[in-house]
Amino acid sequence: MRTLILGGGGMVGQKLARHIVANGLNGQQVDITLHDIAFPPDPIAGATQINGSIADVGTLEALAKTKPDVIFHLASIVSGEAEADFAKGWAINMHPTWALLEALRAEHEADPSYRPRIVFTSSIAVFGGPYPDKISDDFLSAPQTSYGAQKSICETLISDFSRKGFIDGISIRLPTICVRPGKPNAAASSFFSGIIREPLNRQEAILPVADTTRHWHASPRSATGFLTHAATLDTDLLQNRRALNLPGVSCTVAEQIEALRDIAGNDMVKLIKPQPDPVIQKIVEGWPRNFAPERALALGFKAESSFKEIIQVYLDDDLKRLT
Amino acid sequence: MRTLILGGGGMVGQKLARHIVANGLNGQQVDITLHDIAFPPDPIAGATQINGSIADVGTLEALAKTKPDVIFHLASIVSGEAEADFAKGWAINMHPTWALLEALRAEHEADPSYRPRIVFTSSIAVFGGPYPDKISDDFLSAPQTSYGAQKSICETLISDFSRKGFIDGISIRLPTICVRPGKPNAAASSFFSGIIREPLNRQEAILPVADTTRHWHASPRSATGFLTHAATLDTDLLQNRRALNLPGVSCTVAEQIEALRDIAGNDMVKLIKPQPDPVIQKIVEGWPRNFAPERALALGFKAESSFKEIIQVYLDDDLKRLT
Repeated sequence: MRTLILGGGGMVGQKLARHIVANGLNGQQVDITLHDIAFPPDPIAGATQINGSIADVGTLEALAKTKPDVIFHLASIVSGEAEADFAKGWAINMHPTWALLEALRAEHEADPSYRPRIVFTSSIAVFGGPYPDKISDDFLSAPQTSYGAQKSICETLISDFSRKGFIDGISIRLPTICVRPGKPNAAASSFFSGIIREPLNRQEAILPVADTTRHWHASPRSATGFLTHAATLDTDLLQNRRALNLPGVSCTVAEQIEALRDIAGNDMVKLIKPQPDPVIQKIVEGWPRNFAPERALALGFKAESSFKEIIQVYLDDDLKRLT
Repeated sequence: MRTLILGGGGMVGQKLARHIVANGLNGQQVDITLHDIAFPPDPIAGATQINGSIADVGTLEALAKTKPDVIFHLASIVSGEAEADFAKGWAINMHPTWALLEALRAEHEADPSYRPRIVFTSSIAVFGGPYPDKISDDFLSAPQTSYGAQKSICETLISDFSRKGFIDGISIRLPTICVRPGKPNAAASSFFSGIIREPLNRQEAILPVADTTRHWHASPRSATGFLTHAATLDTDLLQNRRALNLPGVSCTVAEQIEALRDIAGNDMVKLIKPQPDPVIQKIVEGWPRNFAPERALALGFKAESSFKEIIQVYLDDDLKRLT
């Protein structure tokens, strides 16, 4: 079984690749290729790395010719960068998906038995307010960032290419993944990880928003679980709605901080320094707060059931490796 | 005031152009240019015609350089053709919208005071079942045709370019326009006009679906009203949801036929010949049946209130010109 991870150098891509190297996919051994603009210094044994830009159509065509059975499409620039650099956002987050789908359609037309599974990491950024208390599975996509618009368009492309039978795609709208290991990134959501990760590493963390801010989270381990489940799911069950809201944990920043206090004590919590940033507050206020992801739950997608559990995943999977 | 109609040679484009030539727009005199691949034999006095393909990026750039104040973007191939010719559907119904928006963004960046109103004719084909009894304004877009997917993507592009301030766009999801004058076209919805128009012109009409089929309609006169209203609306009122479900009349084919009987008598109705076509029945079964278009109504969009009224518009605006 041949698997390709576009965006394989990122945090989620690397965790997914390690998981697949260790466990296979659906009980099958997997030949795994990672494509990204950059990779961490320690390559994953058993995975092939290809350096390059997702915007390079020739490379996408060459990768399509290798006929991967499963393609995880995780490649994108983050919301903050797509908002700051409009042209780059579309050039990286939208047009390459079109080029990839066209390259795969060409392979399908040359060999109609070829119809790869594509798992696309979409985002809850496809939504825009005003919101109901819980966003249902049939709530409209009305993105209020270019990143969200690009994700929404890629979902629609993947659905239509799938409906026509050229590919067999599924788009999963990831909650904000938290606690991310490593350094802060340019995403406006970066602080959600920072206020947990930095204190646990005995460092100060900036909290740029009010602690009443409510948001929707799942752990990196859940992200790997979502992706592998989506790769092996019977897509007939999707009944032509191939974009899914995923399960997660809805909580306020105050509840996140209380979970940290429960697990790590008051001294850790003191390392969180409130420093309101109106720009970040405004962006985050536009984000979804809670979901009723009934379809994904019925299809067997699973996330944590509390924010404490999300912190525990970080302690188990990442902090122990760092200390 | 400079106005451009892309797709200005089609039925709706021609009616819109005649209306604007006669009445101006918002009380202002209008310099009007029509662009299309083909035009009817009788040019509209007072309007400039440009022949060409919407897929010609050079022409779109040249048109953008003329800095129209209002652009009506009606250009597309119909649903049946986009479904039969996948590549052409995307090449005509999606990519040119991207090229147009990029050309307008370039003009905006050269002259930030330039921010044209774009009125895009989207369609209720952006929706896909299962449906609630009435589709609300926050129901998801889950298109089940390439045409619907292309319309949905153009909406998302127009919304994001508008949010960034490059243009000032609005997408209006037209009901199935009925009664269309002239000949049947390749749209799967063509019979909805045919079963009224052909009998009124003493010709037989084929009814390819069950008469219990319910659908959502407005007249060509309403379409002109929707477009001119959208061109002059205060878009701040849209609050960043720039795609609108429009008002219309929900009725079954049996109710359409009863309205025809009321207006024109039983002999006319006898000219309708049921001839079930499973392909058309299947397509039409996937279409929306009814809406609760509260936002559009609150914003002042108006349609007919009965199917009899829709037939009367045909008699007033089109049949008298033909007889």
